[in-house]
Amino acid sequence: MTNAFHYKLLKTDGGARLGEVHTPRGIIRTPAFMPVGTAATVKAVYVDQLEAAGADIILGNTYHLMLRPGAERMARLGGLHTFMRWRRPILTDSGGFQVMSLSKLRKITDEGVAFQSHIDGSRHMLTPERAVEIQCLLGSDIQMQLDECVALPASRDEVARAMERSIAWAKRAQIAFGAQLERGGAREGQALFGIVQGGTELDLRVHSAQALAALDLPGYAVGGLAVGEPQDVMLATMQVATQHLPSEKPRYLMGVGTPLDIIESVARGIDMFDCVMPTRSGRHGQAFTWNGKVNLRNAAFAEDMRPLDPESSCPAARDYSRAYLHHLVKSEEYLGAMLLSWANVAFYQELMQAMRAAIAEGRFAAWAAETKARLTRAEK
Amino acid sequence: MTNAFHYKLLKTDGGARLGEVHTPRGIIRTPAFMPVGTAATVKAVYVDQLEAAGADIILGNTYHLMLRPGAERMARLGGLHTFMRWRRPILTDSGGFQVMSLSKLRKITDEGVAFQSHIDGSRHMLTPERAVEIQCLLGSDIQMQLDECVALPASRDEVARAMERSIAWAKRAQIAFGAQLERGGAREGQALFGIVQGGTELDLRVHSAQALAALDLPGYAVGGLAVGEPQDVMLATMQVATQHLPSEKPRYLMGVGTPLDIIESVARGIDMFDCVMPTRSGRHGQAFTWNGKVNLRNAAFAEDMRPLDPESSCPAARDYSRAYLHHLVKSEEYLGAMLLSWANVAFYQELMQAMRAAIAEGRFAAWAAETKARLTRAEK
Repeated sequence: MTNAFHYKLLKTDGGARLGEVHTPRGIIRTPAFMPVGTAATVKAVYVDQLEAAGADIILGNTYHLMLRPGAERMARLGGLHTFMRWRRPILTDSGGFQVMSLSKLRKITDEGVAFQSHIDGSRHMLTPERAVEIQCLLGSDIQMQLDECVALPASRDEVARAMERSIAWAKRAQIAFGAQLERGGAREGQALFGIVQGGTELDLRVHSAQALAALDLPGYAVGGLAVGEPQDVMLATMQVATQHLPSEKPRYLMGVGTPLDIIESVARGIDMFDCVMPTRSGRHGQAFTWNGKVNLRNAAFAEDMRPLDPESSCPAARDYSRAYLHHLVKSEEYLGAMLLSWANVAFYQELMQAMRAAIAEGRFAAWAAETKARLTRAEK
Repeated sequence: MTNAFHYKLLKTDGGARLGEVHTPRGIIRTPAFMPVGTAATVKAVYVDQLEAAGADIILGNTYHLMLRPGAERMARLGGLHTFMRWRRPILTDSGGFQVMSLSKLRKITDEGVAFQSHIDGSRHMLTPERAVEIQCLLGSDIQMQLDECVALPASRDEVARAMERSIAWAKRAQIAFGAQLERGGAREGQALFGIVQGGTELDLRVHSAQALAALDLPGYAVGGLAVGEPQDVMLATMQVATQHLPSEKPRYLMGVGTPLDIIESVARGIDMFDCVMPTRSGRHGQAFTWNGKVNLRNAAFAEDMRPLDPESSCPAARDYSRAYLHHLVKSEEYLGAMLLSWANVAFYQELMQAMRAAIAEGRFAAWAAETKARLTRAEK
């Protein structure tokens, strides 16, 4: 037995892959969806509920955590797992994406990105090395390299420059991670993933994927997608990128997405996903179900005594009436956000479980066609 | 065996009473604290958590529920218990207090109170008869009569007039409740309580208590207190009122209060309490503990790895560090409000359980002195 981080490909079915990511903190069954625990909590959901829903891994946001409570403080408190009472693996992003979307007065150079906190205006510097160090202090099981994610649309030159910089940063991150392993800041079994960039320029994506593959990192993400481009563009870009990534490593599509996005991406060989959609939608009165998205604000539910899904294993979806959920949402009660976030997190896990079962049984294409039709029909 | 609503006085210890309120939905161990479920949810707390914390009864607010989802709608949905999935007894107030504090353009006459909803401006009329009808539609186990609660300070004349009107309304409510029992709108075992009014005028309180006692209602509340008057005034007024209430009926002090208020009131013979304090404080970052009130916003907790109370039976108080709670409160995360509301609701139930045990063992005075000293010392 080895403690080493590794991916085990169990079965393929068309482009879809059934696998396991092995970490010292547990096995991640793939395809996997990672609920987003931005500030050391998956918003409005208890960790026990995440576990019971079948989440093998959650995501933490380095940008938020480095600002509050702070990386060094988190280390003194025993790391993110202890802090938030989550025992299974955690993946942290590098902070780069949210520096670009949330911080003030940011300035990017080859060295890294300087920015001011959106919370208190304090000044910070994120370099590839510091991003690794912070993620070591948080204690994450899977780290992401610092990358530069340009907002689309952008010129090809700009996209190319950011992509090249991201490759250079991947190399620096890899060296920094190795140094952390040497001196005990990282432990065996923890992993650093590279991030393919290149906007929607297919040749740039190929170049990025090949350059990163040459680094022999333990896993790869496709970044910079699902930022507003049409789904077919996203899928085509992602597919080109993954074709140039090694099949023996896990592939993670960052920030994706809707159930339909996820089904299409699994069909194209993606293993891991994260998205705020289940929890954010839950806080806005929307539920994901096997019969499509349900907007609980709708007056039609005011006297609907049916649960969201009587066959769900999640109490939030099974035991409360739509009328009650409607009332809670209309009344802006905490419990509305709590129940719908919980139900949505559970639905996403059910979706992944159903995909894994379909791949295992060699019927993924049929399952996907049927499920897409069901979800699409219901939305109309 | 009778299905009739009744109070069983098990033991007295000085002025303190150990008892049980028997209802068809279960026994309420007294002294009891009722968490407030304003809009068909105890804010940010799951009903399972309330049950596990030992709450035998919760409170619902008629004013909120009659406006949303509406009383007739609630009846069509199977009543408040089914709606919110709470199986144990529910007490509902009459709506009068919140009409005065929340609604717009209210007008009180001997007939009742006309007002406009604070939600949508819709017009409503609450009479003693309609308040009974609404509470029947909600399906509450203990109803409160409609009363008139004047804001203090107020002239003696004004207080006297409101008190007399409240007695008249109690009589009308009793007749209306009897009629509901006849025609099946209320069931055997459900009860209507009267409310003693009279401001801080002791003789008016005596008059009110005697007049209501003469109606032989199944229980009595002391209303119109804990609205800003000093604690000693509240206690003196309450004590005078209770001395003129029958000892074989439960006594409920409405809207009270802090742990110290509750201890003092139990010492003076009160059996039931309700207050938004545990949940409201929880949403504002404050925790009640055996060592006093703890403000989790305080920077001193940023690296405090101790739980709120390692010996608590409540996971929220026992399993999460103060540093984590501090972080959640500072980050305005749902989970902060969820954990602290849960911990506070559980603390209040622990407090009641400790009081019941002390009365049972005939050591309430010593327990109260020790506990008051501990809570007061800690607050300094």
